Amino acid sequence: MTSPSATPANLVALLDGTVVDVASPLIRADDLGLVRGDGIFDVAHGHNGRVPGLEAHLGRLADSARILVLPEPDFDGYRRAVDALVEAWDWQAEPEALIRMVFTRGPEAGGDPTSFVMIAPVSATAKREREGVRVVVLDRGMEGEGIVDLPWLLPGAKSLSYGINMAAKRWAVANGADDALFITPSGRLLEGPTSTLVVDLDGALRTPTQDGILKSITLEDLFAKGPAAGLDVAFADLQLADLDRIRGAWLLSSGRILAPITHLDGKPVPRSPLHDELARVLEVPGA
Amino acid sequence: MTSPSATPANLVALLDGTVVDVASPLIRADDLGLVRGDGIFDVAHGHNGRVPGLEAHLGRLADSARILVLPEPDFDGYRRAVDALVEAWDWQAEPEALIRMVFTRGPEAGGDPTSFVMIAPVSATAKREREGVRVVVLDRGMEGEGIVDLPWLLPGAKSLSYGINMAAKRWAVANGADDALFITPSGRLLEGPTSTLVVDLDGALRTPTQDGILKSITLEDLFAKGPAAGLDVAFADLQLADLDRIRGAWLLSSGRILAPITHLDGKPVPRSPLHDELARVLEVPGA
Repeated sequence: MTSPSATPANLVALLDGTVVDVASPLIRADDLGLVRGDGIFDVAHGHNGRVPGLEAHLGRLADSARILVLPEPDFDGYRRAVDALVEAWDWQAEPEALIRMVFTRGPEAGGDPTSFVMIAPVSATAKREREGVRVVVLDRGMEGEGIVDLPWLLPGAKSLSYGINMAAKRWAVANGADDALFITPSGRLLEGPTSTLVVDLDGALRTPTQDGILKSITLEDLFAKGPAAGLDVAFADLQLADLDRIRGAWLLSSGRILAPITHLDGKPVPRSPLHDELARVLEVPGA
Repeated sequence: MTSPSATPANLVALLDGTVVDVASPLIRADDLGLVRGDGIFDVAHGHNGRVPGLEAHLGRLADSARILVLPEPDFDGYRRAVDALVEAWDWQAEPEALIRMVFTRGPEAGGDPTSFVMIAPVSATAKREREGVRVVVLDRGMEGEGIVDLPWLLPGAKSLSYGINMAAKRWAVANGADDALFITPSGRLLEGPTSTLVVDLDGALRTPTQDGILKSITLEDLFAKGPAAGLDVAFADLQLADLDRIRGAWLLSSGRILAPITHLDGKPVPRSPLHDELARVLEVPGA
């Protein structure tokens, strides 16, 4: 545990740039984001006063809004709120922070959508998991292929309805692991509850084809910067059996950025020889 | 539209019995119920100052809490809050109300779970749908059978993560209907996004076997009171093809109580000769 006095308090900003302490009540009890999970979010990584992925995350927020038939997010307002939080944050005390943009359908009784941004430190757990995560494989209960044709299942949206994602993480922790990897009933590899899978197959980096699963900004970063660093990155149709022949695997997400998988269902997973290069390309702090 | 001045304002009560207007900010921005849909709810029907199903709904709230690994809800606190709202509500102006109990995992930064109760009028839409609902059939993307063995999918919990349920209703409305009926990819009938299906098959009332789908309190009421009224009510494994031979069908839920299906994917559905008896047994206001 780090000393709590060293950590800045989490903050919230409204889109007009007003910053408030996260402990003040801000949201109506009948907000549809709360009572129906009817809204979207996105999380960007901040480091030493910079939020390099902000525009990509705003772009994905807009994609999520379209999928949920929400109005277009107020991009300038979100930028203003992020700027205010970056200004208010103590980057000396806490050089890494998560910046979470939230957008809900607003009060059930009627009214405007709810928009705000929060800032919080990258947790000690997330930082520790950059050294390694133990992962359990969990059946997501649905095949992925057809889902793009079933828009009411909100494929590809980062919706606030993350109850199952949280339950999968809880299940993992209750069963001696740190995180989960979802597969389809037929054994196709999907994604983690809050992350994207990348595996090393004989030196080639492969990640599950993203139809019906969330587009990963960290992965886009890898696609953009990997080839110049000599990394071969591509989508692939990955099956459970492929996990028996991997040379290494990672979970990618905005907070941890890159978490090497050390165990899958209790079985050790080697650390890929590409790990250090990958950490460099993705600019993992401390790497 | 009824005159807005005739409708009491929606209210919220805390578990100590304090009543506040729903328009006052009450919830922290980092409440896990909001940012992760990580919480549960239940909705009871109030009529003329009485909430007959309250204990059954509290029981289901406790079931949901167990499935989400939340603490046991404070039953006395919820009863106190409901009493306070029943006392504060203007039942003369609005004889029917929905009483929604909410329970979340609390602030992400740590702290107690969040608990409150809300009261709002039964909407004009819900009342109108007691006369009939047009329903579209939507693929839920997953088979039901195995789900009871996948606890991380939260089978049977009334979680706040209702994003897909809301999206299915939006899809229905955008496609000229009022509501949806979920089926599995293989064509087994499941439930509506916020309701339970009952069909009349040659005078027998049948409802989909409830493994992995939400236990319905209105249905329990029908099971309890139906036989004495001569109604044959039972669970059954219902398939899409069964919809071609029904004599009538309904969606059951706490607000509408009983909504006869008039159309399925645009095809007219007859009104069952059992409708009036069913409405009487379920004490549908005005029936």
